[in-house]
Amino acid sequence: MLSRATIDRVVRAALDEDAPWGDLTSEYLIPASALATADLVAREPGVFAGGEVFAAAFRLTDPRVDVRLDVEDGEFFIPGAVLAVVEGPARSVLAAERVGLNFAQRMSGVATLTTEYVAAVSGTTARIADTRKTTPGLRAFERHAVRMGGGHNHRYSLSDAVMAKDNHLAILAQKHGNLTESLSEALSRLPHTAHVEVEVDRLDQIAPVLAARSGGRRVDTIMLDNFSLDDLRRGVEMIAGRAVVEASGGVDLETVGDIAETGVDVISVGALTHSARALDLGLDVRLRVD
Amino acid sequence: MLSRATIDRVVRAALDEDAPWGDLTSEYLIPASALATADLVAREPGVFAGGEVFAAAFRLTDPRVDVRLDVEDGEFFIPGAVLAVVEGPARSVLAAERVGLNFAQRMSGVATLTTEYVAAVSGTTARIADTRKTTPGLRAFERHAVRMGGGHNHRYSLSDAVMAKDNHLAILAQKHGNLTESLSEALSRLPHTAHVEVEVDRLDQIAPVLAARSGGRRVDTIMLDNFSLDDLRRGVEMIAGRAVVEASGGVDLETVGDIAETGVDVISVGALTHSARALDLGLDVRLRVD
Amino acid sequence: MLSRATIDRVVRAALDEDAPWGDLTSEYLIPASALATADLVAREPGVFAGGEVFAAAFRLTDPRVDVRLDVEDGEFFIPGAVLAVVEGPARSVLAAERVGLNFAQRMSGVATLTTEYVAAVSGTTARIADTRKTTPGLRAFERHAVRMGGGHNHRYSLSDAVMAKDNHLAILAQKHGNLTESLSEALSRLPHTAHVEVEVDRLDQIAPVLAARSGGRRVDTIMLDNFSLDDLRRGVEMIAGRAVVEASGGVDLETVGDIAETGVDVISVGALTHSARALDLGLDVRLRVD
Amino acid sequence: MLSRATIDRVVRAALDEDAPWGDLTSEYLIPASALATADLVAREPGVFAGGEVFAAAFRLTDPRVDVRLDVEDGEFFIPGAVLAVVEGPARSVLAAERVGLNFAQRMSGVATLTTEYVAAVSGTTARIADTRKTTPGLRAFERHAVRMGGGHNHRYSLSDAVMAKDNHLAILAQKHGNLTESLSEALSRLPHTAHVEVEVDRLDQIAPVLAARSGGRRVDTIMLDNFSLDDLRRGVEMIAGRAVVEASGGVDLETVGDIAETGVDVISVGALTHSARALDLGLDVRLRVD
Amino acid sequence: MLSRATIDRVVRAALDEDAPWGDLTSEYLIPASALATADLVAREPGVFAGGEVFAAAFRLTDPRVDVRLDVEDGEFFIPGAVLAVVEGPARSVLAAERVGLNFAQRMSGVATLTTEYVAAVSGTTARIADTRKTTPGLRAFERHAVRMGGGHNHRYSLSDAVMAKDNHLAILAQKHGNLTESLSEALSRLPHTAHVEVEVDRLDQIAPVLAARSGGRRVDTIMLDNFSLDDLRRGVEMIAGRAVVEASGGVDLETVGDIAETGVDVISVGALTHSARALDLGLDVRLRVD
Amino acid sequence: MLSRATIDRVVRAALDEDAPWGDLTSEYLIPASALATADLVAREPGVFAGGEVFAAAFRLTDPRVDVRLDVEDGEFFIPGAVLAVVEGPARSVLAAERVGLNFAQRMSGVATLTTEYVAAVSGTTARIADTRKTTPGLRAFERHAVRMGGGHNHRYSLSDAVMAKDNHLAILAQKHGNLTESLSEALSRLPHTAHVEVEVDRLDQIAPVLAARSGGRRVDTIMLDNFSLDDLRRGVEMIAGRAVVEASGGVDLETVGDIAETGVDVISVGALTHSARALDLGLDVRLRVD
Repeated sequence: MLSRATIDRVVRAALDEDAPWGDLTSEYLIPASALATADLVAREPGVFAGGEVFAAAFRLTDPRVDVRLDVEDGEFFIPGAVLAVVEGPARSVLAAERVGLNFAQRMSGVATLTTEYVAAVSGTTARIADTRKTTPGLRAFERHAVRMGGGHNHRYSLSDAVMAKDNHLAILAQKHGNLTESLSEALSRLPHTAHVEVEVDRLDQIAPVLAARSGGRRVDTIMLDNFSLDDLRRGVEMIAGRAVVEASGGVDLETVGDIAETGVDVISVGALTHSARALDLGLDVRLRVD
Repeated sequence: MLSRATIDRVVRAALDEDAPWGDLTSEYLIPASALATADLVAREPGVFAGGEVFAAAFRLTDPRVDVRLDVEDGEFFIPGAVLAVVEGPARSVLAAERVGLNFAQRMSGVATLTTEYVAAVSGTTARIADTRKTTPGLRAFERHAVRMGGGHNHRYSLSDAVMAKDNHLAILAQKHGNLTESLSEALSRLPHTAHVEVEVDRLDQIAPVLAARSGGRRVDTIMLDNFSLDDLRRGVEMIAGRAVVEASGGVDLETVGDIAETGVDVISVGALTHSARALDLGLDVRLRVD
Repeated sequence: MLSRATIDRVVRAALDEDAPWGDLTSEYLIPASALATADLVAREPGVFAGGEVFAAAFRLTDPRVDVRLDVEDGEFFIPGAVLAVVEGPARSVLAAERVGLNFAQRMSGVATLTTEYVAAVSGTTARIADTRKTTPGLRAFERHAVRMGGGHNHRYSLSDAVMAKDNHLAILAQKHGNLTESLSEALSRLPHTAHVEVEVDRLDQIAPVLAARSGGRRVDTIMLDNFSLDDLRRGVEMIAGRAVVEASGGVDLETVGDIAETGVDVISVGALTHSARALDLGLDVRLRVD
Repeated sequence: MLSRATIDRVVRAALDEDAPWGDLTSEYLIPASALATADLVAREPGVFAGGEVFAAAFRLTDPRVDVRLDVEDGEFFIPGAVLAVVEGPARSVLAAERVGLNFAQRMSGVATLTTEYVAAVSGTTARIADTRKTTPGLRAFERHAVRMGGGHNHRYSLSDAVMAKDNHLAILAQKHGNLTESLSEALSRLPHTAHVEVEVDRLDQIAPVLAARSGGRRVDTIMLDNFSLDDLRRGVEMIAGRAVVEASGGVDLETVGDIAETGVDVISVGALTHSARALDLGLDVRLRVD
Repeated sequence: MLSRATIDRVVRAALDEDAPWGDLTSEYLIPASALATADLVAREPGVFAGGEVFAAAFRLTDPRVDVRLDVEDGEFFIPGAVLAVVEGPARSVLAAERVGLNFAQRMSGVATLTTEYVAAVSGTTARIADTRKTTPGLRAFERHAVRMGGGHNHRYSLSDAVMAKDNHLAILAQKHGNLTESLSEALSRLPHTAHVEVEVDRLDQIAPVLAARSGGRRVDTIMLDNFSLDDLRRGVEMIAGRAVVEASGGVDLETVGDIAETGVDVISVGALTHSARALDLGLDVRLRVD
Repeated sequence: MLSRATIDRVVRAALDEDAPWGDLTSEYLIPASALATADLVAREPGVFAGGEVFAAAFRLTDPRVDVRLDVEDGEFFIPGAVLAVVEGPARSVLAAERVGLNFAQRMSGVATLTTEYVAAVSGTTARIADTRKTTPGLRAFERHAVRMGGGHNHRYSLSDAVMAKDNHLAILAQKHGNLTESLSEALSRLPHTAHVEVEVDRLDQIAPVLAARSGGRRVDTIMLDNFSLDDLRRGVEMIAGRAVVEASGGVDLETVGDIAETGVDVISVGALTHSARALDLGLDVRLRVD
């Protein structure tokens, strides 16, 4: 899912950022002939993500470095687990270490936090989905990590789905008077492949949204924004499978289980990406000079 | 819809391609002080598209060149019509001329061909849609031109919609035995915002496709591939507004009207972008040296 | 002639355009272990061009995909001919398919149209040449296709040859009074390696153009713009091998043979690149899951 | 300190990532003539950082959008405070909203967390410094945020300072037997402008490190890694101003105050950048259509 | 002739190279409000080139800096002359100073050395031309400097002219036996706009080269490589204006005058760009803090 | 020290510059099957630098070309020495020749000039260092060459070290009255890893500069600008190993030995990079067609 082109582009930029004109320490203190073996070790439990990205940091620094991934993306690990083994010229291993770790720690942090949300809704039919609140430049990586943690992706960008919020509905209403009619008209203009999601604040907005139709199209998803649990339940009943039901607002690890129990299909959680902390992974390096 | 960032990036590359180290002719034969006024003139009738792109060729060559667009994107024009007036330092106007024309001619060619398809389905509810058969590097421009010609866009890329064809259905069936079940299972894994289109070859595939369900999702669009007019009509009846109906295959200006009469919602036409010819537009330049 | 650097840069951009964050269909519907064999098949007769570019679409998506070209650039093929065979991981083959086809169809379209022009002038000494009316961003590819169709390239860009048209001559004349003198003076300033072409509208302009001289330089090519067949013939006689004679204007498949018979050396044809349609090539894919 | 070139490059890439082919919602649901006024509002207390970056998201989307920053980078704010006011075409304001927020939230998160560490060491002479554990691609932004929170920057990259750790010392020792001698020899080869920091694990390593000399150079900084508070105190005494003393390891908001009291000069804190969460800032948008 | 796009691209890269994360000195030691006025002063006599490039270093660092060029490219100056005046925020002026000087010193160095060669051939009809022995990445700049010094440009790149040397002639001969025939055949395949230059080592090669013909084409330039003055003179006579005569080899300021006296049209001098030294220009900066 | 990423990026740009659309001569005059063997031969004595860069020009043109380096960077060679042997397809070898030479000649020129300065100070403890007066875009390459010639690098950029000159000192003094105090205050704000160098014009400035202190920091290097030999000697005595002593100004091959004898640690020489001439290296090519 992460194309090699994307990985290479982003990792290369990170390596440039971290060593615009080489690694002084390695170059002046480590002989060119020194070799290193390094274990990527978990210092806390978690779910791994970013194996290919971690490996790319070394591969793009020096093709002679070999990285063996012992754990796959999406696997759980315990503290002390060896997740990968890196082997090659010591200068190159040390030069790529920090960049490789920065990616693996962040991506594993996102995956691990996602699994906590996923666990909290287990037994329900709700999926945990990410949002556009991602780190600028790392969206593809963070969404991959969400999937590796058992979550699902929401729209990738402003270009692939429509999200009509109160502001938009107000403007549409101003034009047509009637919400059903105005949404139907919008459906008639929108590309037929654009997913259409409408955010509602009140239960009485659901019926007119569901009634919108144009050329085989309907509103695909209704987002119930900041609804009480009771209202979520009522919303799910009213929609009755005629659209995806998404809950949003006030979601955290305490509340997400109850929200899922209401029967909603999707719970979107900004925190997955905007507030995950880096997981504590370290590289244990052993050098040898022959 | 065409962001300035996209226009600037693509036009700048085209200018570099056309003058990697300057315009020898202008530099050696035209005095720096010479001024030019140039009319963008239609040599045949058509629909205009690419005004902002045409203007960018001059603006990015020299900010002192002024381009006044007399016709908006999407407007029809007759032969001899003046579509835009360019004014500024002669060297710059001449240096940007060919690149500006290359864009405007191609984009107007696409828009004009699109209007012919749109006209051929007028009076029906079918929309004319483009495909991914666009010129590499110019997709955003060509899709803009399609819209300017009254057409609609299909999915932009492989990343924003799913298109399950015979090959995919065969593989899914191999896994689950049953098409409805396998599509339902796929819906349960796919991002809920991904538009799902399924291509069918026979009428008896429609019912199982329509029956697929997962978490408020259904198949969004059914493409009837290479169906006879009778079968298209029957397909539309069977689908009955429960999905978008798209017709594809064997579409040309002769056949498109009859296809539209069957009641399908979308007719996708590769020719809009892969076989439009450049429209004949010219630049009438008047130089003056004071 | 198409350097690998150029191919890679342009094809990579096209792949990014067509799948900014992956191919959803392949990723969600095709198992990672599935393999594909695909034949590039001609659906109409033509001349092939773009084999290396087609192959690059697959290679740059996934180095494990193997592309065997069965037909070389420049070869003629009949409908049903297998032009290439693609083999590798199914996800990658399907992800690269459209981009590979978009290039091969367009380039083969240009090559095929070129052969028609070349055939129409066979038996004469005229060469068919392209112009700068190419698709922005694809000039190197389209000019390669022209050569593969038996045509020749004209100047690549504004930077490598001078083309003095009526506007330029008027300005030069204003400065010097005399055309021969003014062209001689321009030759004395121009880089000696810059090809100098002068466009004339009337027979009486030929002699003064031919008379221009400076430091071993003369005008290299005289373009007879929109001349009647009789005037072309007279122009060829007057020039008598002392410059390349180029005919331009009103050239199509009907007229090009007669124009060539007048004895001109070069006939430049904008249509080769601005109005070629994509050739109908398809990819027949067979998937297998072990 | 954040150059406009850096801001523009990074923000432009983030905008492209978030809208590769435009904002469908704005384009189809908001009239081109609609205007928006939007307040950047704090939903929790904190320290602002990233004002110029936030503004760039709007400026680079549409130069007609005006952003007035009401709070400067480094200023503290209370919940409800209006940090900036954005005004301009509604389509553009809405298209840039998420990207602008993503930057401002993260940068303010880093600045705010930094102030907590800085407050915890107030009254001491220790400075709080960041590390290379930054988000790939955003190092310059995050280090700016650290400074805005009252922290200091550590080395920017592998290229501008040497950090000799146990591994390096072991290799040096292997070559020379003697640590002082081997460090002196390294100083004699290193660029004289490269800051040299040596990490020690034990108090008895300090004296030989301090004794190293070459051509006016000495070791600039000694990092006491995972030292007890007592050992830190003793280390500070032994070094006695002859090098910068840096403490590292086991630093959190609980421990940092005591560490600072030992008299160390620098405390480096990876958490500043690798574990700051996004601050809760929102954009309150008001649309109007005339 | 230097397009703004080229200047901006190259200067921006140089600024990034010289300050990847800002100018520490200015940022920490100069108040943001300080202003600077700086004179670009000549410390030795010479010919100016690179004014626009020098100015761009400041403009691209900070659009508020104003650069007034007091001397135009191509003008001679004496020691002490003020060539430009820079005014603006002190931090920005100081940050851009070195990059601006690095360009102006090098370009003026090339222009000045060129004038020495041009002066040495004054009174003859020979032009001094540059070669492809330019600094990688700076070709457009150095060729501009050559022109500003009164020299002329040779071919820009491998793509815009053919240069057939002994190796090529040997291979051609192997194929055809006869040099005239083989060159004629090559002319029949080459783009008619490609300048064709043939390098000869002996006088007896001139006649067969001159005899080559195809479709109005002939060999454009004959390079007499390492000829004695006598042989140059004889070569000029034999060619008699039927091709440009270029002398090459053993050219320096001592010999160039005599070579020019032989009547050759072009003398190409690699030293213009590969061995020019930077001219001594300095920036006298006056700061003020209000 | 030169990372492969840097080499590839810069060499690729140089190849593009030299052949934007291929090498016409090779493509039209050399059969695709021809092979070449080429020796890189020294035409004058010198010190080699740039072997990897030279090789990259061929490797990036065509991976089938093999380059064997017979001399390592930093080795001395005599006229006639074969430094490398290139073998592969003739078209590719000829296409890359000029770019490969342009790099190797310049880098070897810098290395060779550096060895002359290094030789002139042999027997002293002074190191020869480069400056920021490098060719824009080639800094990493030229600094590598300086090291290969036995020299040392100074600060790489404005971002990694502080250089306080008279202007800065004047401003600091204005703020604090007292130089020691103002430098101490600056040290307290500067990143502790930023090397701090202060330029002084008079001996009486040394004591206050040496007295500056903050948190284990002091001024790292004192540059004695344009000092007489006597004053340099006195400066060295006064500084007495408490900072690096750098001499600058009026340095050439005549004076550098005496300057070194004064006991300074570093002598920075702009001429190493701004005035080195390209060394005369040539490629002797032998073609064969089977």
